[in-house]
Amino acid sequence: MHRFFVQPEAITGDNVSISGMQARQIARVLRLKPGDRIAVLDDTGWEYEVLIGSSADDTVTGEIVHRERGTAEPAVTILLYQALIKADRFEFVLQKGVELGVTCFWPFISERCVTGMPSESKLERWRAVIREAAEQSGRVVLPALYPPIDFELACKDSPVPGIILWEGEKNRGISTVLKSHAFKETELLRVFVGPEGGFTSAEIELARRRGIVPVGLGKRILRTETAGLVAVSAIMYEKGELG
Amino acid sequence: MHRFFVQPEAITGDNVSISGMQARQIARVLRLKPGDRIAVLDDTGWEYEVLIGSSADDTVTGEIVHRERGTAEPAVTILLYQALIKADRFEFVLQKGVELGVTCFWPFISERCVTGMPSESKLERWRAVIREAAEQSGRVVLPALYPPIDFELACKDSPVPGIILWEGEKNRGISTVLKSHAFKETELLRVFVGPEGGFTSAEIELARRRGIVPVGLGKRILRTETAGLVAVSAIMYEKGELG
Repeated sequence: MHRFFVQPEAITGDNVSISGMQARQIARVLRLKPGDRIAVLDDTGWEYEVLIGSSADDTVTGEIVHRERGTAEPAVTILLYQALIKADRFEFVLQKGVELGVTCFWPFISERCVTGMPSESKLERWRAVIREAAEQSGRVVLPALYPPIDFELACKDSPVPGIILWEGEKNRGISTVLKSHAFKETELLRVFVGPEGGFTSAEIELARRRGIVPVGLGKRILRTETAGLVAVSAIMYEKGELG
Repeated sequence: MHRFFVQPEAITGDNVSISGMQARQIARVLRLKPGDRIAVLDDTGWEYEVLIGSSADDTVTGEIVHRERGTAEPAVTILLYQALIKADRFEFVLQKGVELGVTCFWPFISERCVTGMPSESKLERWRAVIREAAEQSGRVVLPALYPPIDFELACKDSPVPGIILWEGEKNRGISTVLKSHAFKETELLRVFVGPEGGFTSAEIELARRRGIVPVGLGKRILRTETAGLVAVSAIMYEKGELG
């Protein structure tokens, strides 16, 4: 069943009214007709099965015939702090991160970033990537994308345990940290991933002073967009989220 | 230092002679000159540091000034059986798989594959993707890409333990299997990943009869190209290869 995150105002009681691009997608692209069913999500954790009553390019209406709490949200909350990297790689991180269960994305700018600030239209596009990945992967809460901030601000003091991926960290691997008491206990975790050129030693030192733990990911050199995904996979595996 | 996998005949004693596209890459694109250093790999597990003596578009020569055994190869051997999927996704699997330490790739064709057999030039391109990823990630042994085979042949009896990723497997998650005795003990592992439309029940049954264990990857629905990468990440994590 096709899934759609809609604005809360699209749902009134048991009635659903979808307009704009999503109506077009349902009526024109997917050619869904009265009597077909879709899944509708309002970002509250509920999933609604909707029987389509009318389907036109500008408006699709329907009725909720079943509702249930979604079960695909992970028990662990991962806040992924990703340096701005080339736009296609950034989209990759968003798409795969959503599939894996990341809760929110904080882009940041650090010394070796070579990509400028994303335009408002780029941010819109990235939100669409997140929404599509969330619809496809079964999420019922839409992961957030925050506006880019400076690395120093991203590292600000926080009670949430954090790790920072660093190829220069040869002694402390991610599994050592994830199996430590502090990380075993927490259900909230910050993960920092650098730009293509990595972090400077000064940035690692800054993070360390703020309590964020530098970790390595083994002997092979991973691209930045791979590193974040591998780290999130490892966390989800350790937390029992991969089954 | 830039790294290059070369043909064995490029090395004679301490002398290295590189021709063709790689010479062009070194001389023209990277503009490396006599006195610069490169790392040369001959797919034997050794890594050679080479001092460039002459650099022209058609031939680059140099002398080995240092040699050491590479340390980036994983202790676990993963044979990744990946269904043929859209070419850009297949390249993604190859690139990320190499970074993560996969030893060889076996493409296969199953019932729901919608992509045809790759042409010889496509296979050549895929081998180049593997070589570049291996050079970039620090590998010293070049992962192999085998010619595509039928799923049934891919599942043939083998003493090597295997898992097959299946979204229909709700009870047995990957961690249960990886923590079992048989998988804890083995240093060789086959991983089967289906096409965009997944495996049929008959294919899962066939695999099961051949001793390949169906496993789930948790509650979220992963795209095929994400699933293989997440499974390999989990295996590498479990085997202590992520540090």
